[in-house]
Formats: sequence, C-alpha cells, structure tokens
Amino acid sequence: MIDEKLKSLAHQLADASGAVIKKYFRKVGSEDKADATLVTIADREAEWVIREILKHERPGDAIWGEEYGEQAGTSGYRWILDPIDGTLPFTAGRPSFATIIGLEFNGRNILGVVDQPITNDRWLGIMGQGAWHNGAPAECSKKEKLSDALLACTTIERMIKNDNEWAAFNRIRSVTKNVLYGGDAFGYGCLASGWIDVIVESGLKLHDYAGLTPIIEFAGGIITDWQGNSLAGREKSNVLAAGTPALHQAAMELLNRV
Amino acid sequence: MIDEKLKSLAHQLADASGAVIKKYFRKVGSEDKADATLVTIADREAEWVIREILKHERPGDAIWGEEYGEQAGTSGYRWILDPIDGTLPFTAGRPSFATIIGLEFNGRNILGVVDQPITNDRWLGIMGQGAWHNGAPAECSKKEKLSDALLACTTIERMIKNDNEWAAFNRIRSVTKNVLYGGDAFGYGCLASGWIDVIVESGLKLHDYAGLTPIIEFAGGIITDWQGNSLAGREKSNVLAAGTPALHQAAMELLNRV
Repeated sequence: MIDEKLKSLAHQLADASGAVIKKYFRKVGSEDKADATLVTIADREAEWVIREILKHERPGDAIWGEEYGEQAGTSGYRWILDPIDGTLPFTAGRPSFATIIGLEFNGRNILGVVDQPITNDRWLGIMGQGAWHNGAPAECSKKEKLSDALLACTTIERMIKNDNEWAAFNRIRSVTKNVLYGGDAFGYGCLASGWIDVIVESGLKLHDYAGLTPIIEFAGGIITDWQGNSLAGREKSNVLAAGTPALHQAAMELLNRV
Repeated sequence: MIDEKLKSLAHQLADASGAVIKKYFRKVGSEDKADATLVTIADREAEWVIREILKHERPGDAIWGEEYGEQAGTSGYRWILDPIDGTLPFTAGRPSFATIIGLEFNGRNILGVVDQPITNDRWLGIMGQGAWHNGAPAECSKKEKLSDALLACTTIERMIKNDNEWAAFNRIRSVTKNVLYGGDAFGYGCLASGWIDVIVESGLKLHDYAGLTPIIEFAGGIITDWQGNSLAGREKSNVLAAGTPALHQAAMELLNRV
C-alpha cells in the first residue's frame, strides 16, 4: 500500500511545509479563529503548499486539512493535515509545535509524519514497515508502571472545564513519577522515541491524531481514546497514548474509575 | 562593572556548558536527587565546566551552583548557575530547557544569560547596557491587559498542592487570552523577546531566577515575587514576570485578591 514513491512524497510534503514555517517562525503576529485558537499566516500557507503538491501528485486522493477543510477524492486515500499543531508555542517562539501529516486508506491510518522544522526532528510511521525518527528506528519505552512513568500533557485548559475529566486527569497525574506540560504533537514523537512514557489529552480533533497513530503503533506503543477505542476516522476525541500495553491499561483504569 | 572582557566570558561559559549539553541530549538516562527532581550527568558536567573556567578566569568570585553548591569568594561578585533548567524536557528530548548563568555584584543581579544550545537561542542581559537575543536587542511586548495576554507557566505540579496558590493561579489563568504550559527558563527568554506577555510560577529557587532578572529588566519588563518584592539574593520564591508595569500590576491584583 505504501511504496517508496509514497514514502518519498511524505518527506516532500513535510519538507515543503517546513520551509514555509521556517520563513515565518518568530516573524509574524497571530489572529483569532472563531474557535479562539490561534492561527497564523504560516499555518495557512503551510497547508496550502502541501495541498498544491497533492493536487499534482495524487489528484484522486481526498484531503482533510485544519485550515482549508475537506476536499473529496475517488482513490480511497485521504490525507489529514495539521500544518502547525501547537500554534501557541509557535507564536511564543518555542519550537515545540509540529506539522502532522496523516494518510488513511479506506478509513485506516496507514502513514503518519510529525515534523519539527526548527529542531529538524521528523518522525515517520508506516503500516507494516515501521517507525523512524530522523531515519533511525523509533521505539517506545518499556515502562510498565505509572510510578516509573513520565506523563505528558499539552494543556489543562480543556480538562479543567469538565469536572469528570479534571478528576480523571488528577487521578493519573498524582501517581506518575513526573509530569511534563506543553508539547503538542512533538510530545507524541518523543513518546515514539521512548523519552516520554504516557500522554493524556482531552478535546483533540481528527487532524491532531490521525497522523500520530502509525508512528506510535509502529514504535511499539498504543494510542486510543480514554476507553481504549480506536481513534480512526473520529472527528473529535480525548487521547491516551502509552509505550506499553501494561502502562496503557493502568492509565485506563485510573481514567475510568468512578 | 561589566566590561567587554566580562561579557565575553559570559558567552564563553554558555558555549562551554552548551557543548556538554549537546553531547548528552537524547543520549543519557536520568537519576533521582533527594528532592525528587531529575538530574542528569549532563547537568553535573555542564556546571563543572563552567566552574573550571571561573576558577581560572575569576578566582576571587563566589559561585553558587544547583549541582555543586556554594563556593565562597572575596571579590564581591557571585556567579549563580543552573546548568539545565528544565531537566524534565531535557530527559523527554524536548529542547525547551535552558542553561541559566547569573552574576551578582554585592547582592545585585548585574548580568544574566539564558542559553538553549540545541535551538541556538541565547539571551543576555547586562545592567546599564541592555538585553539581547542572539546579538540583537530584545524587547518585551507592550500588552497592558490580561485579556490580551499570553500567560506562560512551566508546571502546575507545585501550585496544585497549595490551595491558596492554586486559587490565585486560577484567578489569572481564567482571564488571560491564552495559557501556554511548559517552558522553564526558555519561557523567560521568550518574554524578553515579546512573544510571551506574563509568566506566573511557584516554588522557584535562587538559581532559577538570578540570571533572569537582568534579561527581563533590560528588555523593559518586570520580574518580582507575587507581591512585587525583589528576588535578589532570595533562596526561594514564587515568581511573576510581565512585559509592562500595567500587566504586572493587573496580575498582582488577581494573585493577591483574598
């Protein structure tokens, strides 16, 4: 399903968006979208250049992008794009944001890219082939206990507005060894490389996680919603990612304890 | 008080610690200290190389370092070192940690460096001279209202254990435009560059903020404790930093409302 040509196209897309992002990083202001997240000129132009390449190279594929919405296709393939995941760190001058590129075939996540163009970190996951960080195999950590684990969470801003979610998050944050805040998609790359053990987030959308699944899964980890259900094709979900099944299970038990 | 030779020494110290940190980033594990923060081999070696240079170049100066403690001096100068501020992002492979180097003269903070050796970001502040980011003048943002402001906070882990602090933080986080988590000393550099407007933190120590004061102040901002008191020479404090006096005042009012 993924041949060398498609793999090389994935790199080409990330190279193109990265070049746009580098041009704007620390140089532009920001503006508001209706949903009150920040978006920049860079965000739009980075998605645009990816769409232009796809239009030429893969005219039959569907595209779903955070900035320009859905474009129907005929091939069974759908690209899911988040040009800048982490617009807050982007506007704050901190290179912990990332570009996420996902590819579905008939509803299954078969390829994912997480790219940080300032630090030159690129994670790639391909179904049936593997996961890589900058070309070398990426592998999740082997930790099985929450008391040994580094938990990451991008923000508490969504969870704190929901009593059940906030209580669930606090059950897990209070028993892990350490908690690292911030990170966005970059954090999932770090999880695929074994540097972070578990990630808990709330209120993510399709473009936030579609590209993460192949990277996490082929690095040996697990990514689902808080109940263990697949994220494939879902418009919105909370997310639980862990390096091992044991850690994933332990986290699920705490998140869902009533 | 700060001549070209001392300024150039500050760069030399940051170059030396940065070379150590680059060597170990994403290559070492971590260990526990008694106070349960993480510390790495890199942390110790980075402080060691700074101390070795100071021993040779400034034998009369006192040194206070996070890893190797206090060494008395005779000159009235004291160097305050935090080789890796943000050991959690360091171990997580995320380059949002920083080296902080501060210099006091008779108890006043006269020079500060915040250095990120992976992203090659260096902020420098010198009393009576100015503040710079990678050699260009650094200037705080001009925002005056919390409703327009990007608030940053490294972690909630300390504040959430103290009911008063947690309530105070929530009064401010709920009225700012956006909140960015994570960041450590790197965030204060971003504040000096005008990308972040206000920072609220709890439970910091002398080595966390001594080097920040000259950078923030000479970029036009204000850094104090939550009550507006100077941080100079204090062993431990909460911290409030803002780009403008108006924003600092507005944040103080919310933090201290009973």
